[in-house]
Amino acid sequence: MTASSRTVGPQPKTIAFVLYPGITLLDLAGPLQVLSALAHAVPGFAIAVVAERLAPLPTDTPLTIAADRTFDDLPEPFAVVVPGGGAPTLRAMGDRTLLGYLRRAAAGAEIVASVCTGALLLGAAGLLEGRRATTHWTYRHLLPVFGAAPATARWVEDGPVLTSAGVSAGIDMALHLAGRLAGETTARTLQYALEYDPAPPQGALDWARAPADLFAPVVDRLVRDAWPDGAAGKPADR
Amino acid sequence: MTASSRTVGPQPKTIAFVLYPGITLLDLAGPLQVLSALAHAVPGFAIAVVAERLAPLPTDTPLTIAADRTFDDLPEPFAVVVPGGGAPTLRAMGDRTLLGYLRRAAAGAEIVASVCTGALLLGAAGLLEGRRATTHWTYRHLLPVFGAAPATARWVEDGPVLTSAGVSAGIDMALHLAGRLAGETTARTLQYALEYDPAPPQGALDWARAPADLFAPVVDRLVRDAWPDGAAGKPADR
Repeated sequence: MTASSRTVGPQPKTIAFVLYPGITLLDLAGPLQVLSALAHAVPGFAIAVVAERLAPLPTDTPLTIAADRTFDDLPEPFAVVVPGGGAPTLRAMGDRTLLGYLRRAAAGAEIVASVCTGALLLGAAGLLEGRRATTHWTYRHLLPVFGAAPATARWVEDGPVLTSAGVSAGIDMALHLAGRLAGETTARTLQYALEYDPAPPQGALDWARAPADLFAPVVDRLVRDAWPDGAAGKPADR
Repeated sequence: MTASSRTVGPQPKTIAFVLYPGITLLDLAGPLQVLSALAHAVPGFAIAVVAERLAPLPTDTPLTIAADRTFDDLPEPFAVVVPGGGAPTLRAMGDRTLLGYLRRAAAGAEIVASVCTGALLLGAAGLLEGRRATTHWTYRHLLPVFGAAPATARWVEDGPVLTSAGVSAGIDMALHLAGRLAGETTARTLQYALEYDPAPPQGALDWARAPADLFAPVVDRLVRDAWPDGAAGKPADR
């Protein structure tokens, strides 16, 4: 029995988190935790984790993860959220099945969201054209390749497109989305439930001193490896 | 070939994240992301995710997860980190295999850490006796049952025992640990890599207004369900 064939009553609004091999675990886990708590607390929302197949997938940690639905099971989610990663995410920009799902899901979705370099996948799927967007700070310069206007912000909302900065920013983006979907009081309760009262032991980041020189060569190498032929319109040509 | 039988040269210091069914995903994913990044950046550290078996396990989200090592594969980690959760964590306090692993691993480990209600598992394993410790704010009153002195802090270090507050606090605890293991400059670089510059959209939590009345009945019910007979020394007797 599929959810769509026998469910009685109104369909829940399903927020679909999209998996592919090698994602950065926290890109997924932050918003998935926040929005799973939302779906638990508020009637009318459901959460799914979707992938091409249900087989276990690697992450950028030793943990392997698996979806509970396939792309075919959930063609029309209410919202779609795609996490990012390093080299595997750049490789996934050539995954036609994945990009096809993002395009089809986005066509009917009210919210099309990304965390970190997940924005590059939205871009590769043609979903950032003419939008303001953000991504991990070390990849932000690549956004114009996809017709997007890069923004320096924890998250950016432009029409249905909601993009967050790197990794941990997905938590902030998801709490913002929870407030939008269920009200600020509910979002605040979720924040208490997740005890999200951050106290970074090394203090706030100082962007004037960000170690760009340390990260830039790594990003440049990853991008070159992903597009060795420097095809027109690809990030290697920026 | 096991890691211990053929590896040449010094053994890496392995940080073992302990799985059991039904954990809160972010309790695991926060510190696992931070410390995987540490192991990637700094020679001499390795990360493992351990469980009784390698079969996929549920989380408190639709995602299923799997370890890469069994308890038997890794009897003597350098550090052990146990995540928390809701009802499944309370049930896991009766899991003799899990508690046995925590005890054996802790005996030789330099660091014995928990996130959120993972502290209750350390407590049930007898590892919090006489220690200052913390846990999710809604469960903090249970710590004395295990001989621990409850502390209100984002994380608490007492000898080898390192405990964090709820869910997202594991990120802060892990960055603290990264600083201790590899120096503050490295921890700072990891913080940039994870773009951990939190901006909670609903602002900082106001603990004077924490919705304790909303959470307390839920916690009380979960504890009663986990120890229906109110056996001596169990949380139901607090």
